[in-house]
Amino acid sequence: MKLTFDLDAADGAARTGRVATPRGVLPTPLFMPVGTKAAVKHLDATDLHALGIPLVLGNTYHLMLKPGADLVADLGGLHAFMAWDGHVLTDSGGYQVFSLNPKVTDEGARFRSTYDGSTHHLTPEGAADIQSKLGADIQMVLDVCPPLPSRRRDVQAAVDRTEAWARRGRAAFLAGAGWREDRGLDQAQFGIAQGGVDLDLRAEGARRTVEVGFDGYAIGGLSVGETRAEMLPALAAAIEHLPADQPRYLMGVGDPASIVEAVGLGVDLFDCVLPSRHARHGTVLTGAGRLMIKNLAYERDEGPLDPDCTCPVCARWSRAYLRHLFRVGEPTGARLLTIHNVVWLSNLVVGLRTAIAAGRFETARRAVLDVWG
Amino acid sequence: MKLTFDLDAADGAARTGRVATPRGVLPTPLFMPVGTKAAVKHLDATDLHALGIPLVLGNTYHLMLKPGADLVADLGGLHAFMAWDGHVLTDSGGYQVFSLNPKVTDEGARFRSTYDGSTHHLTPEGAADIQSKLGADIQMVLDVCPPLPSRRRDVQAAVDRTEAWARRGRAAFLAGAGWREDRGLDQAQFGIAQGGVDLDLRAEGARRTVEVGFDGYAIGGLSVGETRAEMLPALAAAIEHLPADQPRYLMGVGDPASIVEAVGLGVDLFDCVLPSRHARHGTVLTGAGRLMIKNLAYERDEGPLDPDCTCPVCARWSRAYLRHLFRVGEPTGARLLTIHNVVWLSNLVVGLRTAIAAGRFETARRAVLDVWG
Repeated sequence: MKLTFDLDAADGAARTGRVATPRGVLPTPLFMPVGTKAAVKHLDATDLHALGIPLVLGNTYHLMLKPGADLVADLGGLHAFMAWDGHVLTDSGGYQVFSLNPKVTDEGARFRSTYDGSTHHLTPEGAADIQSKLGADIQMVLDVCPPLPSRRRDVQAAVDRTEAWARRGRAAFLAGAGWREDRGLDQAQFGIAQGGVDLDLRAEGARRTVEVGFDGYAIGGLSVGETRAEMLPALAAAIEHLPADQPRYLMGVGDPASIVEAVGLGVDLFDCVLPSRHARHGTVLTGAGRLMIKNLAYERDEGPLDPDCTCPVCARWSRAYLRHLFRVGEPTGARLLTIHNVVWLSNLVVGLRTAIAAGRFETARRAVLDVWG
Repeated sequence: MKLTFDLDAADGAARTGRVATPRGVLPTPLFMPVGTKAAVKHLDATDLHALGIPLVLGNTYHLMLKPGADLVADLGGLHAFMAWDGHVLTDSGGYQVFSLNPKVTDEGARFRSTYDGSTHHLTPEGAADIQSKLGADIQMVLDVCPPLPSRRRDVQAAVDRTEAWARRGRAAFLAGAGWREDRGLDQAQFGIAQGGVDLDLRAEGARRTVEVGFDGYAIGGLSVGETRAEMLPALAAAIEHLPADQPRYLMGVGDPASIVEAVGLGVDLFDCVLPSRHARHGTVLTGAGRLMIKNLAYERDEGPLDPDCTCPVCARWSRAYLRHLFRVGEPTGARLLTIHNVVWLSNLVVGLRTAIAAGRFETARRAVLDVWG
């Protein structure tokens, strides 16, 4: 795999650059929307392309259960299945599995499907094989994600097991190279650093993951209930031990304040369900903060959701119309708010890219924190 | 109002032509999708334009309650509200109101809102005023829609009251001309012929509606539970008394067999929720008949929904992917099937247009009935 990261500009620790894969180039920092079950809710591949989204995340946990990794592989992988020629990243399945209170041993995690109650066993080797079958451009190694707060010994145990699983997952990934090559698949694999909010455990988690050696590195197990004041030092402690010439990915973080602070620490990639989930509940992301579209204040508001937004929804529809769609439960409303929120959050990160290149990151950071901090 | 109908070709009683309004030209026969609450479910105005849909129906009953006709008027009417520059037709509200078991007097129909239980009174004058405020290109006069089967005396009473209401509705519409002109609105109004499935009452209903004088004529109160063998003679009896130089609109009929038979009798316009409702339940309209997308048979089917369909869904996605989206409840699935069904049914009617112009209507009719009859 030839995944590379090239730096274009830095402003303090914040950086902008390009992740290049055999499929194409991803400018960073970059926010990727979440297509849990092979679709960003209410959107399709034509939409994603039209909206300029270059990368989406698919959830291994959901896809391995329905429609199943073998079926996706037989149909040519996620790109062919979704009819999507942009980039796809699949998570390891670990985050969802650990939320199901699984039985965890050194071998792996045993859990029950939320679809039909059937029992499944996810191992580091299995996670790599399943993701090879799903065929994403970037796969994630299986990690152990402890809830926060956890006792230090539990976080330490998670760091230990995460490294052991990282070694097995990496070996399985490398062993699958021939299988992938036969199918014309060229995948990268990212490692995941754990460590809770203990700075030394975060540093240790990052060091030990880097020792295994991956094509890029994620910081996992953050934004799981801790405050931003707890999260950011832990993130900084991890990043200090990640290689500067490889991409850094903060998993599951999508609120504007956390994104801008993480970019300030040198993070390149983000994913989160936040823009989609907010949209389905009628919450709109704007330059002035959150806007609840159902509020009476917007009953006769002929203006766009955000006057500074470049999305096709803000170009065409009024707050009054979108409020009406939500009040009467029309699914078109959730779709249009999803389009706006995804584009708005993507554009926020694109704006940070521009600010970094121009040496104005701190000004841009302040502007975001003034509204969202 | 300068709504005109120009005949291009006839083949037996089937005809193809153009309805021209100040907004533009509608080629007929034409199927219009239903945007009950100012949106075709899962679609927006950009979609409708991209799919080549020239006319959508809005429901007066729903829109008068939410968001309310005054609000729509204040925001510039349905076209501005929906950001839609195609044609809009609004029904009279009568069909929904009569399904709510209203208290009907000579004056009008008193009913309770399904939204909040509040009481409302819909009169012929009110229906015209409300629809002027909604601002559609074509509004429908308030009629009395009896259930089928009904006693002959009840159908006769509905025909009598429908004429009385038609006279009042027409007068109210004409009296509103100044109000509309002040707002740059140029609307047409269609009358509705009732008469159940009694041939003589249908003929009488049509004659009496035509005597009142409208810009076009609808046949209402059909496809409400009677068989097609009962419906078609009643439809023919009505059409015999409708003017040949004005458009004819069969309300609420959308199944392919009924459409093709009605076109054969000289109907120009159709509306129905069928393609949207089927789509939401995973039922696909195809040249080979109905296809239930959730069926196991499509689990690994890499083909399009309908190999002969020109819609953007058939161009891009497989049955296997669409089946997956439905099985896991992704709203993208309902959206994509809606796009397919609406385009497929529209294209079916466009195909009849071509067949009539070429003198091949009977062959086209047979082909549809072989599958859908």
